[in-house]
Amino acid sequence: MSDSVPSKKPKCSRQSEERVDWKKLKAERLEKKKKIKESKLFKQLDKKEKEKNQQVAQQSLSENRGRQYTVSVALPGSVLDNAQSAELRTYLAGQIARACIVFCVDEIVVFDEQDEDVKTVEGEFNGVGKKGQACVQLARILQFLECPQYLRKSFFPVHKDLQYAGLLNPLDSPHHMRKDDVCEYREGVVLDRPSKPGKGSLVNCGMWKEVRIDKQLQAGLRVTVHMNKTQNEESKVFKGLVVAPHKPRTEQGLYWGYSVRLAASLSRVFTESPYKDGYDLTIGTSEKGKDVDQTVISPFKHMLVVFGGLQGLEASVDADEKLEVTDPSLLFDLYLNTCPNQGSRTIRTEEAILITMSTLRQKITSAFQKVSSSS
Amino acid sequence: MSDSVPSKKPKCSRQSEERVDWKKLKAERLEKKKKIKESKLFKQLDKKEKEKNQQVAQQSLSENRGRQYTVSVALPGSVLDNAQSAELRTYLAGQIARACIVFCVDEIVVFDEQDEDVKTVEGEFNGVGKKGQACVQLARILQFLECPQYLRKSFFPVHKDLQYAGLLNPLDSPHHMRKDDVCEYREGVVLDRPSKPGKGSLVNCGMWKEVRIDKQLQAGLRVTVHMNKTQNEESKVFKGLVVAPHKPRTEQGLYWGYSVRLAASLSRVFTESPYKDGYDLTIGTSEKGKDVDQTVISPFKHMLVVFGGLQGLEASVDADEKLEVTDPSLLFDLYLNTCPNQGSRTIRTEEAILITMSTLRQKITSAFQKVSSSS
Ligand SMILES: C[S@@+](CC[C@H](N)C(=O)[O-])C[C@H]1O[C@@H](n2cnc3c(N)ncnc32)[C@H](O)[C@@H]1O
Ligand SMILES: C[S@@+](CC[C@H](N)C(=O)[O-])C[C@H]1O[C@@H](n2cnc3c(N)ncnc32)[C@H](O)[C@@H]1O
Repeated sequence: MSDSVPSKKPKCSRQSEERVDWKKLKAERLEKKKKIKESKLFKQLDKKEKEKNQQVAQQSLSENRGRQYTVSVALPGSVLDNAQSAELRTYLAGQIARACIVFCVDEIVVFDEQDEDVKTVEGEFNGVGKKGQACVQLARILQFLECPQYLRKSFFPVHKDLQYAGLLNPLDSPHHMRKDDVCEYREGVVLDRPSKPGKGSLVNCGMWKEVRIDKQLQAGLRVTVHMNKTQNEESKVFKGLVVAPHKPRTEQGLYWGYSVRLAASLSRVFTESPYKDGYDLTIGTSEKGKDVDQTVISPFKHMLVVFGGLQGLEASVDADEKLEVTDPSLLFDLYLNTCPNQGSRTIRTEEAILITMSTLRQKITSAFQKVSSSS
Repeated sequence: MSDSVPSKKPKCSRQSEERVDWKKLKAERLEKKKKIKESKLFKQLDKKEKEKNQQVAQQSLSENRGRQYTVSVALPGSVLDNAQSAELRTYLAGQIARACIVFCVDEIVVFDEQDEDVKTVEGEFNGVGKKGQACVQLARILQFLECPQYLRKSFFPVHKDLQYAGLLNPLDSPHHMRKDDVCEYREGVVLDRPSKPGKGSLVNCGMWKEVRIDKQLQAGLRVTVHMNKTQNEESKVFKGLVVAPHKPRTEQGLYWGYSVRLAASLSRVFTESPYKDGYDLTIGTSEKGKDVDQTVISPFKHMLVVFGGLQGLEASVDADEKLEVTDPSLLFDLYLNTCPNQGSRTIRTEEAILITMSTLRQKITSAFQKVSSSS
């Protein structure tokens, strides 16, 4: 019965069980190569190998393993005010982060439905209280969780919002790597280390050695590094190229975490999209929406799924002075009930994210399957 | 856009917004009827009304609004040991209850994968600690939450397992009614009140008046009461019949909460089924399972969906001495990966319940839609 369908996606491999030392592995491979070189068949073999490598490269190009579309989720920061203690407030933020990671969400937008008018996570805040500053707190905890552990010290100084961070369940996403994990890409922070002219900056990518990149960048920047395919084992550093953060997704179809954006109102969720032409498929969620089972999704570039808070999207629409409509369904391409015949009078926002993304996942998959099989 | 499909299911109506007094409403109806009786057209009308009532009754019979199938969920109590504090342990139990209620689960089976060998929630326990007694604790909290608020005092004496019950989110399911809610069925507790021979017991159904049932039953029993269609407003009590707890579901298609069962091992989840012929569709869940998108579900009588704990169903199988297999997939009709391409290396059990039931909900709906449209 367990004829599991093997995933076609490339995966970063973790060798935590059988702690393989990357250094040792490379050394062994080098040794092997040396021996082959010594043999008389060397030249002949070398040629064959080159041909094979070229074939593989072309194949992978034509396979197009990358994922070109993105999925964004938006929700009001006020959901935190629904928690009964400071600990549970933190835990709830963690549930939201986990729900988004599980479904490979690329962007989380936290919007203000109470006119708190905040747009940054910089400055002074009063820590995790029972009420208020919900948007900033939620955004900060989401960012904290998304950041690979080895970079947290660099980006998250001690802060009251993160007082209960110890209670948070880890996201365990592919870009959260341990020292030994092998992956083409790595997240890192540019180190404050003088480097000679013509040489690039040093980056901490959470590996045994630091990584020298191709550019000189400002210390403290977070960067996505494409590790060189072959590394000189003798060298004191690894080598890599700085790339745009979307590369792991667009080139290799790897899920690479989410970005977090604050929006001062519901309408700004739409108007301040980081994507040039905005979102081309917007979905509102409500038990008053249309039955999701009756809905088919067409291929899209940038999907946005919006959730309401305690009072639903009606309240978010009401709070937004820019919006002249009162019926939230008019704002979206689709307004969906993603849990027909629900057995509870209300579904909480953190539950609705898992439920909704689970029904949409299947529809997204089949939207893009049709495209690729018909092309 | 908001062409929401109206649910065909009958619903118990809550009148919290517009607090309608049932007593008053009935009195008004009586008044109306009285006036009609007084008119000369009385006999003629009466006959017409009877005919109409008969038609409606027959129609509702042929419509068959009841739900005949059941859905059970099983999980190891050890999931609680995955929580980081006593409060979060309680909260986690609440998340599981909510997930099951949202998807109208009829039975939750808590199984022991650590040979704790417990089969009852009676006796002495040490309260919500960090470890141990997970099965009993989980079962107790699930039962507590399922019980309508107005009955909790009767069934749940102060207990350490329920120390943090104040943190639990309410289930808000249809059988959790407030005083004014109007519904054909009500949950109640038999009162310790002497009643004259030939008269039935009095039951507290959380209404303004007590309910006299048709039978004399032992005080303290929990009962499901079918309220009489017409009530004598002058009377000091309402009247109703005791029915089997499955009636609201099988007659009216109402969701009526879940029962909780403890199982001493994974195999006993199957062998101690409360349904005469056991479960006829069993589903195991694992990321190593078959892609759920490739799976169609046929109509069934009693579905069982089994979740693993921290170490997955492999660990549950290993812990069960009765089971000779080591591959859990052999135990189930279907062994499903319900979240292909998950963006986290592990999905937690409480998340997996929402995700899995959300994908299955749609498949169950379409299984039974086909049946009813082809019959
Ligand atoms: C507590 S609910 C809001 C309930 C509010 N009374 C209403 O009527 O919308 C919080 C959010 O969860 C989501 N949600 C709840 N039930 C849903 C359903 N059946 N389908 C889709 N989304 C739902 C919506 O985004 C909603 O705004
Ligand atoms: C923490 S996971 C167990 C992980 C364990 N290492 C394994 O390999 O099964 C807990 C439970 O969540 C459920 N689960 C997790 N991921 C799932 C998936 N992709 N599909 C279906 N169920 C899943 C399963 O019931 C699993 O036993």
